[in-house]
Amino acid sequence: MRVHIRHESFRLSRPGGRWEESKAEVAIVGLGLIGGSIGLGLQDFGYQVGGYDVDPQVLETAIERDAVNGIFDNLEEVVEADTIFIAVPPAHVLPILREIKPFLRPETVVTDCASVKADIVEAVHAEFPELAPRFVGGHPMAGKHVGGIQNAAWNLFENAAWVLTPDAGTDRQAVSRINQLVCGLGAQVYHMAPDEHDRHVALLSHVPHILAAQLVQTSQGLAYPQVAGGSWRDLTRVAGSDPALWTQIVMNNRAAIADSLRALADELAGFAILVEDGDKENVEWFFNAARESKRRQRED
Amino acid sequence: MRVHIRHESFRLSRPGGRWEESKAEVAIVGLGLIGGSIGLGLQDFGYQVGGYDVDPQVLETAIERDAVNGIFDNLEEVVEADTIFIAVPPAHVLPILREIKPFLRPETVVTDCASVKADIVEAVHAEFPELAPRFVGGHPMAGKHVGGIQNAAWNLFENAAWVLTPDAGTDRQAVSRINQLVCGLGAQVYHMAPDEHDRHVALLSHVPHILAAQLVQTSQGLAYPQVAGGSWRDLTRVAGSDPALWTQIVMNNRAAIADSLRALADELAGFAILVEDGDKENVEWFFNAARESKRRQRED
Repeated sequence: MRVHIRHESFRLSRPGGRWEESKAEVAIVGLGLIGGSIGLGLQDFGYQVGGYDVDPQVLETAIERDAVNGIFDNLEEVVEADTIFIAVPPAHVLPILREIKPFLRPETVVTDCASVKADIVEAVHAEFPELAPRFVGGHPMAGKHVGGIQNAAWNLFENAAWVLTPDAGTDRQAVSRINQLVCGLGAQVYHMAPDEHDRHVALLSHVPHILAAQLVQTSQGLAYPQVAGGSWRDLTRVAGSDPALWTQIVMNNRAAIADSLRALADELAGFAILVEDGDKENVEWFFNAARESKRRQRED
Repeated sequence: MRVHIRHESFRLSRPGGRWEESKAEVAIVGLGLIGGSIGLGLQDFGYQVGGYDVDPQVLETAIERDAVNGIFDNLEEVVEADTIFIAVPPAHVLPILREIKPFLRPETVVTDCASVKADIVEAVHAEFPELAPRFVGGHPMAGKHVGGIQNAAWNLFENAAWVLTPDAGTDRQAVSRINQLVCGLGAQVYHMAPDEHDRHVALLSHVPHILAAQLVQTSQGLAYPQVAGGSWRDLTRVAGSDPALWTQIVMNNRAAIADSLRALADELAGFAILVEDGDKENVEWFFNAARESKRRQRED
């Protein structure tokens, strides 16, 4: 990769300096919020990190922010790294694999960061059987309401869950390497099957986004939706998320999301009957059980 | 009311000093998070505020925190004030009105802070027709995930909505007085009919609490619910709310909540079909519309 060597006096101004060649240990494809944060974190951890992004403006910001040690001019150059993080929206993972596949060295380990796993892992097995043992599906369960390299942070993954979806055929050394890097970023690693992951994120992430959007839409029928208080703001905050990204995420996890939404709709319709009947005992039991479950999840 | 005169040297330690008689301009019944915050705020605004609570420990904390200028030893003594805020759970509002009614002076204005309005306002009209013109139903749309006098704050209502539900028969001076006090607390006043209020809070507050609780309960079926990220924490934060209080709130707004829940369940079931059919166009339209609506609500 080309490494941008900067004069100290330029550090706070626009990039200046000259370019040198250097070897990247880790390559990151896609320098958005997630990719940029991986770059910032792994450099702290001592790794030499190279980055690639299709958007020259993003690359420039990544250099300004020191999110990577250097940049690749072309996508296929990322194969010089021992480990490649593909940190792009779900639909772009396979096209990128197709592009770098001819250049991949047999020892390189590849992981992705897409929020859906079954489709991608299945496609890797089907389309790239020789890569499959060194492909470890991954999903960092961290984010912000604002995306982009400008919001990347070295500690974005601290105390966040990071799901990996290796299977019996995955090379143990490949899994171990990704485990180690992810743990170095401060995340907690969970291993589960790709479809189990997709069921988890359907309920824990995708359905909440849909619910938030639906609540906001339904509230448009009220005369003064602005009287809402804190609980409303908490619940609807993610309704402002990027529509194109979330459409793609939802389209990639259709079965699990549809199942979760239907189960939730049934529960809510059932709860409406409890409320209408004035069944105080069961309503209170429900709120008590939820508070206990919430406590067990050790959140807040 | 009895006013607790404290020696300066005692201000940061346990209450000491002596008691004197003084006249309260505003009386607050119930010194929890809401009542205590009203007391702190109105004193800043220059009012002489007296408080009452059934719990002696709460009264002691209210004095320690200077949430009120003095305390009433008995509930009926609150009638000496020109304005009475009843800041207790919904089911306790009418019993308190029954107790103070025989002692009320004809010029005293009464407001409450209960999160449901139609039942209370109707009952006031039916049971206390002569009080009705000076009773202004109210609901401050502010709160915290933690309640109690120890969490009261002088600025709790700043930039929060505060709904008042006067009708054509309400005395204009009574409305004006409550308007003024509420605006003094930094809140934004909204006037609406009691049942319109109840429809608003059903969707904007009660249903979100039920949704949060339902999401947490449904997630108990997952192997690793703890992998949830930030959006999950946002949406389920209020699942830890007081079950007894929320059961009471829900029981007092049954029809509006059941209607809202059913409408939401229908929308979610409909969205499940869009997702299952892979109807990308309509899914993206939905997320776009929600983001626009969210922006119009000027939140975050």
